[in-house]
Amino acid sequence: MPINKLLIANRGEIAVRINRAARELGIRTVQVHSAADADSLAVELADEAVDIGPPAAAKSYLNAGAILEAARETGADAVHPGYGFLAENAEFADAVETAGMIFVGPRGDTIRRMGDKAAARQAAQEAGVPTVPGSDGLLTDPGAARAIADKIGYPVMIKATAGGGGRGIRIAQNGDELDTLAPQAASEANAAFGDGGLYLEKVIERARHIEVQILGDGNEVVHLFERECSLQRRRQKVWEEAPSPALDAETREALCGSAVRLAKSVGYRGAGTIEYLYDDKTGEFYFIEMNTRIQVEHPVTEEITGVDLVAEMIRIAGGAPLSVRQADLAIKGHAIEVRINAEDPANNFMPFPGVVADFRFPGGPGVRFDHMLYPGYQIPPFYDSLLGKLIVHGESREHAIARLQRAVSEFRIDGLKTTAPLFSALAEDAEVRSGAVHTGWLEPWLEDNGAGLAQNEGGLAA
Amino acid sequence: MPINKLLIANRGEIAVRINRAARELGIRTVQVHSAADADSLAVELADEAVDIGPPAAAKSYLNAGAILEAARETGADAVHPGYGFLAENAEFADAVETAGMIFVGPRGDTIRRMGDKAAARQAAQEAGVPTVPGSDGLLTDPGAARAIADKIGYPVMIKATAGGGGRGIRIAQNGDELDTLAPQAASEANAAFGDGGLYLEKVIERARHIEVQILGDGNEVVHLFERECSLQRRRQKVWEEAPSPALDAETREALCGSAVRLAKSVGYRGAGTIEYLYDDKTGEFYFIEMNTRIQVEHPVTEEITGVDLVAEMIRIAGGAPLSVRQADLAIKGHAIEVRINAEDPANNFMPFPGVVADFRFPGGPGVRFDHMLYPGYQIPPFYDSLLGKLIVHGESREHAIARLQRAVSEFRIDGLKTTAPLFSALAEDAEVRSGAVHTGWLEPWLEDNGAGLAQNEGGLAA
Repeated sequence: MPINKLLIANRGEIAVRINRAARELGIRTVQVHSAADADSLAVELADEAVDIGPPAAAKSYLNAGAILEAARETGADAVHPGYGFLAENAEFADAVETAGMIFVGPRGDTIRRMGDKAAARQAAQEAGVPTVPGSDGLLTDPGAARAIADKIGYPVMIKATAGGGGRGIRIAQNGDELDTLAPQAASEANAAFGDGGLYLEKVIERARHIEVQILGDGNEVVHLFERECSLQRRRQKVWEEAPSPALDAETREALCGSAVRLAKSVGYRGAGTIEYLYDDKTGEFYFIEMNTRIQVEHPVTEEITGVDLVAEMIRIAGGAPLSVRQADLAIKGHAIEVRINAEDPANNFMPFPGVVADFRFPGGPGVRFDHMLYPGYQIPPFYDSLLGKLIVHGESREHAIARLQRAVSEFRIDGLKTTAPLFSALAEDAEVRSGAVHTGWLEPWLEDNGAGLAQNEGGLAA
Repeated sequence: MPINKLLIANRGEIAVRINRAARELGIRTVQVHSAADADSLAVELADEAVDIGPPAAAKSYLNAGAILEAARETGADAVHPGYGFLAENAEFADAVETAGMIFVGPRGDTIRRMGDKAAARQAAQEAGVPTVPGSDGLLTDPGAARAIADKIGYPVMIKATAGGGGRGIRIAQNGDELDTLAPQAASEANAAFGDGGLYLEKVIERARHIEVQILGDGNEVVHLFERECSLQRRRQKVWEEAPSPALDAETREALCGSAVRLAKSVGYRGAGTIEYLYDDKTGEFYFIEMNTRIQVEHPVTEEITGVDLVAEMIRIAGGAPLSVRQADLAIKGHAIEVRINAEDPANNFMPFPGVVADFRFPGGPGVRFDHMLYPGYQIPPFYDSLLGKLIVHGESREHAIARLQRAVSEFRIDGLKTTAPLFSALAEDAEVRSGAVHTGWLEPWLEDNGAGLAQNEGGLAA
């Protein structure tokens, strides 16, 4: 049943993004918001707005009851959760459907299954998708570790099943180290968590993070190629691109094909991302997890394929079959997204909230800036620091990087510090330019280069 | 010889556009400006800026001597003229080359030839490109008109060769009218201009304006398909799109092929546009003129082809051959551009200069807004009223129109009146939606609908 009125259960740039897709489909929109977001662009652009609680996310954007009540009050017939907040909360998805409304995403049981690490790993293996080699469950005793590790190869990571915060983790480079470290890890975990259970995983050194965008309608699944998101700081992606510069056509086909197999095997409905580690030394890829929602970095896929992913999610949720066929999808050019956060990259990314007063945003051909800013906007201090996503699209990766440099050179928000200067510097780095990066690359680079990152200021370019 | 430093001899959005292309090519930029434009975005984005005179264009942007002096002073090795001002001034192009610099455009003699209506018509005929049927020069006497008109068909327009401002023009529906009107027109023209010379042109009723974008490097010429710009007010285009909704593939090939023939026949170098009238009742097209420069509406072509036309102009001017081959060019989707002017469409398009303080500009997938605005920008009253060009790109014409409606619904500049509301209303009109328009369509529509066009205001959408 087609959707007439969509409630947007999120904030910031993704709420604006969802509103845009809905309006182009002729669907009316309801924007829920915390008291801190009453003056947000998302609220202004929506047809209706409902205040669902105080600034703290736990009392507003995570308040399922208030959101469902807002949907009932306004007569919304569907809810789009965006990313974060309740987007991967299976109970919320179930509650929306129980209330007789459409959840724009997969069924609750799919979210539940793919959100459970062990169940998702099992689903991948059943679909013939490679997973990171490991013990596939708990070791019965530390002594069993050696036989498994000898088989999967070193280095291996010994992890406490009850662990957290880095405790109970050891890396063994060879069998002798493992024999020493495994009992230590077990006893440390036992002391810390009251549970000495261990499992093993092969360490994929200098791995890349590569993920495949898929769309399913419950019957058919298509992939929209991959994104590479290896440039990360504290496991947060800061620069994402499509396609990956590391894949040849054959590997791309194998990787994307495996994602389609997995999504098909769970009858996937909606937009989803299947994340992999990729070892460019061996050409092997390994499933790590599935995100059952739209992702922050979805625009790079939109730019290279021409498909509006958010509109497609909404269409599918309204009961339509996929509007795109695999044979019609092709990669056109190269796209890069960088995350413009209100953080000072020269000062350990300290958050820098404030008022957006005087600014210059980039534009022109191949430049898209998905943001929620306007003159006089006061950035609330309660949420994440993402101000917007600067997305560039060019004929080639080299062209996209030149465009990124040009766009970042135009970017200014006076009186604020942002992460923009990081991207000027990265775009000039020889390893970034050649694409020779991995998930551990950025943090040491920042230790060497972070302090020198200076903000753009007014006046003629230097 | 590749260009190292480019002087931008223009202002406003096209100066910003040229700066962006140059920077992506690694070329430094010099922005000349009048005293009224010292605080312009174009000046801010350039590497260097030179004040070339007082606000009046005749003393600044049309002051060839001051511009050449600025180029010499700054060591610029090339000049991009943009559109308007000196862009089609053959003497300026010659002067730039005489001064040892590169003019980013065709040779002066090409500009001269194609800027002369009679010479251009003759070039078209020699290249086998249809021209509007007519007397091909002066009638020797009014009595000769009938024989020609009987051959080309009625209605015909009788024009005084010395005419202007609409005087000396008559339209004859048949031979008897012509016999009466031709002597009247001759004597009126003789009285008004001291020259009774007449010529005849067939009236193409309800014609569309369709133009073909071409690129040449002096040897090869490619076309980048057509744009339709039939929605005009006082001969100014207000809504441009690509491709034309009126052409089938066969007519498109014939039309675009004729443009390539003409451009090749004059050894064309640079970006150019060949304009036609198209009669969709007969499928015939007729050359009207060639513009030997980049055009305001070039972005719709960029969106459907992925080619950066301004970058390509600069590359060609630097001596590079065309980087695109005809076989690689294809139409992808549909693009529409609308001109956001500081004018009140509800009050006969009265200019409305002012300060750009609080605003919301549209964004998101498939939306590009090429403008020169920033918070606090004071629009100078000395130049045209174009604030920016809103360009949308979608999978189909229907999708592009939905995207245009969405984008215009987001657009606000508080305290100013702009032409934005005109485009919301046009996008809902059944004839615009079906593409059934012609160059005479918009003016009567405005008489019926103009007064009701209301500006967007803040707050939730109605």
